[in-house]
Amino acid sequence: MKKIRFGVIGTGRIGRLHVENLLRYIPQAEVFAVADVMIDLAKEWAAEQGIERIFADYKELLALPEIDAVIVATPTDTHSEVSIAAAEAGKHVFCEKPIDMDIERIKEVIEVVKKAGIKFQTGFNRRFDHNFRRVRDHVESGLIGDPHIVRVTSRDPAPPPVSYIESSGGLYFDMMIHDFDMVRFLSGSEVVAVTAHGANLIDEAIKEAGDIDTAVVTLELANGALAVIDNSRQAVYGYDQRVEVFGSKGQAVAYNDKPSTVEVYTEENVSTDKIPYFFLDRYTGAFIDQFNSFVDAINGKSEIPVDEVDGLRAVQIAKAAQESLDTQARVVLEYDN
Amino acid sequence: MKKIRFGVIGTGRIGRLHVENLLRYIPQAEVFAVADVMIDLAKEWAAEQGIERIFADYKELLALPEIDAVIVATPTDTHSEVSIAAAEAGKHVFCEKPIDMDIERIKEVIEVVKKAGIKFQTGFNRRFDHNFRRVRDHVESGLIGDPHIVRVTSRDPAPPPVSYIESSGGLYFDMMIHDFDMVRFLSGSEVVAVTAHGANLIDEAIKEAGDIDTAVVTLELANGALAVIDNSRQAVYGYDQRVEVFGSKGQAVAYNDKPSTVEVYTEENVSTDKIPYFFLDRYTGAFIDQFNSFVDAINGKSEIPVDEVDGLRAVQIAKAAQESLDTQARVVLEYDN
Amino acid sequence: MKKIRFGVIGTGRIGRLHVENLLRYIPQAEVFAVADVMIDLAKEWAAEQGIERIFADYKELLALPEIDAVIVATPTDTHSEVSIAAAEAGKHVFCEKPIDMDIERIKEVIEVVKKAGIKFQTGFNRRFDHNFRRVRDHVESGLIGDPHIVRVTSRDPAPPPVSYIESSGGLYFDMMIHDFDMVRFLSGSEVVAVTAHGANLIDEAIKEAGDIDTAVVTLELANGALAVIDNSRQAVYGYDQRVEVFGSKGQAVAYNDKPSTVEVYTEENVSTDKIPYFFLDRYTGAFIDQFNSFVDAINGKSEIPVDEVDGLRAVQIAKAAQESLDTQARVVLEYDN
Amino acid sequence: MKKIRFGVIGTGRIGRLHVENLLRYIPQAEVFAVADVMIDLAKEWAAEQGIERIFADYKELLALPEIDAVIVATPTDTHSEVSIAAAEAGKHVFCEKPIDMDIERIKEVIEVVKKAGIKFQTGFNRRFDHNFRRVRDHVESGLIGDPHIVRVTSRDPAPPPVSYIESSGGLYFDMMIHDFDMVRFLSGSEVVAVTAHGANLIDEAIKEAGDIDTAVVTLELANGALAVIDNSRQAVYGYDQRVEVFGSKGQAVAYNDKPSTVEVYTEENVSTDKIPYFFLDRYTGAFIDQFNSFVDAINGKSEIPVDEVDGLRAVQIAKAAQESLDTQARVVLEYDN
Repeated sequence: MKKIRFGVIGTGRIGRLHVENLLRYIPQAEVFAVADVMIDLAKEWAAEQGIERIFADYKELLALPEIDAVIVATPTDTHSEVSIAAAEAGKHVFCEKPIDMDIERIKEVIEVVKKAGIKFQTGFNRRFDHNFRRVRDHVESGLIGDPHIVRVTSRDPAPPPVSYIESSGGLYFDMMIHDFDMVRFLSGSEVVAVTAHGANLIDEAIKEAGDIDTAVVTLELANGALAVIDNSRQAVYGYDQRVEVFGSKGQAVAYNDKPSTVEVYTEENVSTDKIPYFFLDRYTGAFIDQFNSFVDAINGKSEIPVDEVDGLRAVQIAKAAQESLDTQARVVLEYDN
Repeated sequence: MKKIRFGVIGTGRIGRLHVENLLRYIPQAEVFAVADVMIDLAKEWAAEQGIERIFADYKELLALPEIDAVIVATPTDTHSEVSIAAAEAGKHVFCEKPIDMDIERIKEVIEVVKKAGIKFQTGFNRRFDHNFRRVRDHVESGLIGDPHIVRVTSRDPAPPPVSYIESSGGLYFDMMIHDFDMVRFLSGSEVVAVTAHGANLIDEAIKEAGDIDTAVVTLELANGALAVIDNSRQAVYGYDQRVEVFGSKGQAVAYNDKPSTVEVYTEENVSTDKIPYFFLDRYTGAFIDQFNSFVDAINGKSEIPVDEVDGLRAVQIAKAAQESLDTQARVVLEYDN
Repeated sequence: MKKIRFGVIGTGRIGRLHVENLLRYIPQAEVFAVADVMIDLAKEWAAEQGIERIFADYKELLALPEIDAVIVATPTDTHSEVSIAAAEAGKHVFCEKPIDMDIERIKEVIEVVKKAGIKFQTGFNRRFDHNFRRVRDHVESGLIGDPHIVRVTSRDPAPPPVSYIESSGGLYFDMMIHDFDMVRFLSGSEVVAVTAHGANLIDEAIKEAGDIDTAVVTLELANGALAVIDNSRQAVYGYDQRVEVFGSKGQAVAYNDKPSTVEVYTEENVSTDKIPYFFLDRYTGAFIDQFNSFVDAINGKSEIPVDEVDGLRAVQIAKAAQESLDTQARVVLEYDN
Repeated sequence: MKKIRFGVIGTGRIGRLHVENLLRYIPQAEVFAVADVMIDLAKEWAAEQGIERIFADYKELLALPEIDAVIVATPTDTHSEVSIAAAEAGKHVFCEKPIDMDIERIKEVIEVVKKAGIKFQTGFNRRFDHNFRRVRDHVESGLIGDPHIVRVTSRDPAPPPVSYIESSGGLYFDMMIHDFDMVRFLSGSEVVAVTAHGANLIDEAIKEAGDIDTAVVTLELANGALAVIDNSRQAVYGYDQRVEVFGSKGQAVAYNDKPSTVEVYTEENVSTDKIPYFFLDRYTGAFIDQFNSFVDAINGKSEIPVDEVDGLRAVQIAKAAQESLDTQARVVLEYDN
């Protein structure tokens, strides 16, 4: 089988992770070239990875006819621009989330993707998590019946710097966007209304930056089910990632992973390892498996599991959540595509 | 120590349970008399329990000077009337929840209780559950810091008859009222706003009866924390009762009880016992311990753990939830006492 | 249904527990009389329980024609004597374990019981534990196939006083005897050979008293399966009681009970409650249920679940274990009845 | 840092796994050459891995001066011969277990290793398992005090072909040898006596081949502790791998891994995923981490974690176990080096 030749645009933390995962774990993939405006910072690393073609201008990368697919791992505000250019160059596109903060820009991307006839995958890696996928399997197989209540808990171990928060678009866009996608993934249904609550309980500086640090959002789904998401910027015990689907025939609950199964019994208590603290430790496998799916889709073996419309929906829901928070009212969602 | 002499008014299922628990497990209690309008139905049972004094008219029971305390286990619509009469007769009162569906009537009870100077306990038995109390302990000790997010899941194994639902006051009054109290208990804070969602996913007849069968309610608390409760009238796998408090220093999670710790490994899967199906199996200990606390409070050893104001609050929140559901809007709560 | 009238002989800790359990939890039972050589110590307690007939000489108790069944809760060295007298008086007998330290004496008991035609139950309460019984159920139902390996862990929280150990007959008789019975119960098979190991790791004084404090014993069963028991006199984390049956179709594992299901997540670790420390906290239900079974057997509703031969077998195995420890060799068991 | 150049001798299943792991996960390692007597079967695979040097005769590989270290993954009966040749050629050696079935041959290897001054690691991969290593950490840190009882359960999902069993050296050499090493690893103490039991419960053909399929072995340790290992050739529910160390201050228990944390609640039961069936699924990380340790030891950063003497000890214990099974007697071990 012919290997898929990848160009990777953006070689910051996440871009490098993708390159290293492709090289190690995706035998059907080849990293043909990388591009980064800060080309000098990337050279040594690229050489270590055995990557010979490295560009400052991503358009040079897109001009290479050998390249089949592109990973867009640039700063968020350039995602849509690079994606559009890549699609127009006939490359399949894997784009980090969110595609854009502006819904109209995302619709432009969707338009171009359709015209170009290429495959587009959005980087909602959590859909590939072993635990959450298993819950989804149990929903899809019908084992737990029709979903009635979906619960998603997602809490970071510590807040990012306030400077980051200021430009993040806010908790709903930066953090809960994954969970909005998760609710759609687990339930197989669209969100029709959003009621958002937020609080400032962790750091006054986050409030001053205009954001919340604690949130509970209720979603009404097209199939009649209710979903509730809670987020916190600071779970001191680790990176808390759980989901639960309750249905007409039963329930599937995904608990946190732990680094070992060991239980210790002492005079004090019974204890186990802490849960992972770092998101890469938790989603190691998910970051890899999303590329197996992408490569399979390019090879025509399966459908793209999380596409440009999925990317759009999550942003639409995040916008509605923000509006709900601001107005203290329920916001109804309508989709024109 | 002098035993507390109880009169029990109402000898239906719950009244009999209370009598049997007092007789078996509360050595400081004595069941001195019972009353029930359907006196004939109760005679044989009372004789088996060794109870000699049995009245059709609860006022005759209240007239007995030997009686120290009364348990009000009559139908809901007579709770406040009987409680008032008992308080005026100088008896301590343990009243099943809800005290009344009418907030003004509850306030009357509160007034009478204050004047009479007696102890009044509301029958929110779940506060005495071994799991939930442990979570509360961890909050109170400061182990998990300030509460940020409280989650309560409470799902019945099967819906009650529609005839019952019709006169129940609706899911928020009949079922979630326990959870409203649980949020106050676990967080140690008052509810300041309610946003309610409901759905009909289980039985069309419930909808026709004007009620919902699935619900998610978000509560804003005075201390800034957020709480979310989900209820279902039908969890086919059993009586699902869980709570969780997430705070600034950690988290305490109470999972369901199971009848045994046994795990079975087969070619199919790894499985355990189902969770209890019947509420009495789950709250066996709680139904007993609430009386230990009541007796201790009467004896001056401790405070009443869940009093008439607690009974009022839960009803006020339930009313706000119903209003929120009806208006699809957030409802702010204000307490004048 | 006629109540079974009990006479209880021996009112030390365990005798009193039995009386209180009969009074509270076994509605088909009545405590008609008690006997104890130290009659003065028991009088106040008996009065509190509402027991009117109390004797220094157990023979006076046995002479009462009203008594149907007797509980033998005297010191171990009088179990067989009292049991024989009771059987000869035509009373059903519930006898604490071990029936005797002398196998010939136990055989005498068996002989008398047979002649008298009464029901005899040995006090191996652990057979009635909710966890172990569930494992047994899974064996009996065939769910896990033929047993291949049985594992029993039984560890006390702290050693008894050395004075007690000196007269206890040693760890195999005093402590592991329960586990010998458990292996027979779980496997449904007889022990045909014993290989015992012991160690002194906890307290030098136990060694000086001629006993071990740590033990691992391997049993070969008639059905070909192997069983292994480990005991320790001191598990600082609590009363560790677990069993496991591995079979041709699967495995059933019983873990320790815990007082609550609560998990606490902090910066340090994830922890739960400690396991129970005191044997009565763990075997509360088992101490009660053994009498339900005894009463049912007397009423002809079921067979005696653990009879005089079961009592004999456990002692025979304990003796073989002691011999194996002393000789550092495997000991084959043969049963002539 | 200079990369370690590996030659891999033997390219069957395990040899290939090692090569692929080195290439993917051990950045400080390079696979310089491979050798296999069945050279033609390996050529295509080697080309795919990008390995250019491939020999039929491992001596040609050993003659390459560029090679720093050798992995011996040939059939068991050639382990010692190849290891000796490699050590004499001045290469560090990683040798699969067992080094040899003949204790004298292992001692020869030890002699040569000492003279050559090279590093020698034995392939007891389970020491690198995340669960077992954590238990070991808790022993080493003193958290659970002095070890008193060590329990190891190790059960294969299905027996190997009888043809394999016939040449395997028997269950103690082929299967339990890992567990003998595990007991030494977990306890930090030497085995001083062995009492072995075995049974034939799974397949008559295994018996006819002269082997057992079920085993329980008790080990007495130099520090006074007792250890017990149970093995089965067939756990239909998966690859059951658990250990437990009970000590003077507590206990550490390692349970089985599971592919996900998901619990499913239905009307039938509560269930989770099965445990892994295939040894590579369970010990994925351990197979990698053993090479990280080997490379670190070669680079002088740490000691060899499991050396040639560890390889010898496990075989000595296995021989004693076999003798114990044959004689039905306890066998004392003495080590002259």
